[in-house]
Amino acid sequence: MPAMPPVGFGIPNTYRFFVPPDAIVGKTADLVNLVDEELAHRMLHVLRLRPGRRVVLLDNQGNASLVQLTRIERKGHIQGHVEQTAAAGGELATTLVLYVALLQADRFEWVLQKGTELGVRAFGPVESERSLPSARADRNKQLRWQRIVCQAAEQSCRGRIPAILEPLSFAAACARAAAARLRLLLWEGATLEGAGEMGEAGKQPTPSLRSVLRAAAASSHAGRGDTWDLAVLSGPEGGLSPEELTTAAKYAIIPVSLGPRLLRAETAPIAAAAAIFYELEE
Amino acid sequence: MPAMPPVGFGIPNTYRFFVPPDAIVGKTADLVNLVDEELAHRMLHVLRLRPGRRVVLLDNQGNASLVQLTRIERKGHIQGHVEQTAAAGGELATTLVLYVALLQADRFEWVLQKGTELGVRAFGPVESERSLPSARADRNKQLRWQRIVCQAAEQSCRGRIPAILEPLSFAAACARAAAARLRLLLWEGATLEGAGEMGEAGKQPTPSLRSVLRAAAASSHAGRGDTWDLAVLSGPEGGLSPEELTTAAKYAIIPVSLGPRLLRAETAPIAAAAAIFYELEE
Repeated sequence: MPAMPPVGFGIPNTYRFFVPPDAIVGKTADLVNLVDEELAHRMLHVLRLRPGRRVVLLDNQGNASLVQLTRIERKGHIQGHVEQTAAAGGELATTLVLYVALLQADRFEWVLQKGTELGVRAFGPVESERSLPSARADRNKQLRWQRIVCQAAEQSCRGRIPAILEPLSFAAACARAAAARLRLLLWEGATLEGAGEMGEAGKQPTPSLRSVLRAAAASSHAGRGDTWDLAVLSGPEGGLSPEELTTAAKYAIIPVSLGPRLLRAETAPIAAAAAIFYELEE
Repeated sequence: MPAMPPVGFGIPNTYRFFVPPDAIVGKTADLVNLVDEELAHRMLHVLRLRPGRRVVLLDNQGNASLVQLTRIERKGHIQGHVEQTAAAGGELATTLVLYVALLQADRFEWVLQKGTELGVRAFGPVESERSLPSARADRNKQLRWQRIVCQAAEQSCRGRIPAILEPLSFAAACARAAAARLRLLLWEGATLEGAGEMGEAGKQPTPSLRSVLRAAAASSHAGRGDTWDLAVLSGPEGGLSPEELTTAAKYAIIPVSLGPRLLRAETAPIAAAAAIFYELEE
């Protein structure tokens, strides 16, 4: 799947909203009909949209519809006419899943927002050994995360909302990441704490993200035209434990360094995502 | 100047603080003696440091000293013994100056913090035509910016505090950026609004950051071993005006695209910085 720019129906800066796919009855009646109190509130009171206004509604299945709103009620009833439907675009060719250790709430949310803008396909929240107790996931946080990635996807004109997986243990995250074509663990080269536990492999200097990506690109038979599928793991504020490094090694997840710099726990996965898309996307 | 990892004197996770160079009288008496009420407050009440504790003090001129604190007074008097002094390290070989249009306060501060972590050498706040009126710089903001880059530099083990230039008009930023070896303007390729004003150059699709960086690397006589010197300009939430694009073109500043994505005004310069260091640093 090549990357496609987001469809805008020739109308710049139109507001975009994800809605349930069954809310758009394009094929039979060209109607939109949904009840969503929160969305109606955003339309009416935050963005001050009124009937007559055109917006783009996305079904999160790859379709976008240009819709003229006919009714927005405080109680949540939203109706409109579908004027045009097209492929939504706005998705990169590269599949990148970020498995991010749970961080302080605002830092974790920031990773979700910025990762969504950059084009991350899915996020796996990881309950790492050294994650702060206050960082644990709960139902309210998960709902909030969903809203954050949805709105970030709308604003950055993504065609789909990135998935947020159920919170995973570090070992479960490694097991899941192991299915990806290229599996990376962000690891500051300078402090190879716990290298002893990793055996001989741990004693070598951590290779750079660049050298690993370019080696993978060179060894790929399909070459650049092929679709990339990556999993990237990153640790919490307090770093990964020696046991976690051992676990990652067991799943053949490659530690990579982002250079001679100390990035915060929330900055590393975003810098890695920016670099990966820079390298792999046209 | 090759990139050097930050010196840690073999003591991991030591607190690091920038202090005025004349506070460290290493050559004559191996003494530290300074008065800084804010720093004393951070040491005593935020980090709960007590006399006897070792910290790293940096003079922002490339030197780091391992210091055992002997006195920390509420009123700001701080004293200690210098045990060791070495090159601070922690600076990348690439010189990257970000000229960032003034944004909403929290977004602009975020660019300063993340850019400092990534290794940006200096920031130029730019009063762009479409910058929000509330985004204007004032003395209080500038002091706050200084604290943000100082603390981000301390936490990410930088050897020097990135400079923050005085706020510049867009034209002045272009004139200043023109002195850099490679001058780039972040510009979303999909919306070439105002291309007509740029003449023929504006009518071509915006080249990708990657293609421009690699072309520059290939054409450089000195090759990778040479020191890179880049200026990157980025616009405000509302984008750049056609006049600003014309101005940038006059100064031979190259518009580059970060791919088929719509990044927020604060995300674009950080994604660009991450990509540039990925490409140019070992």
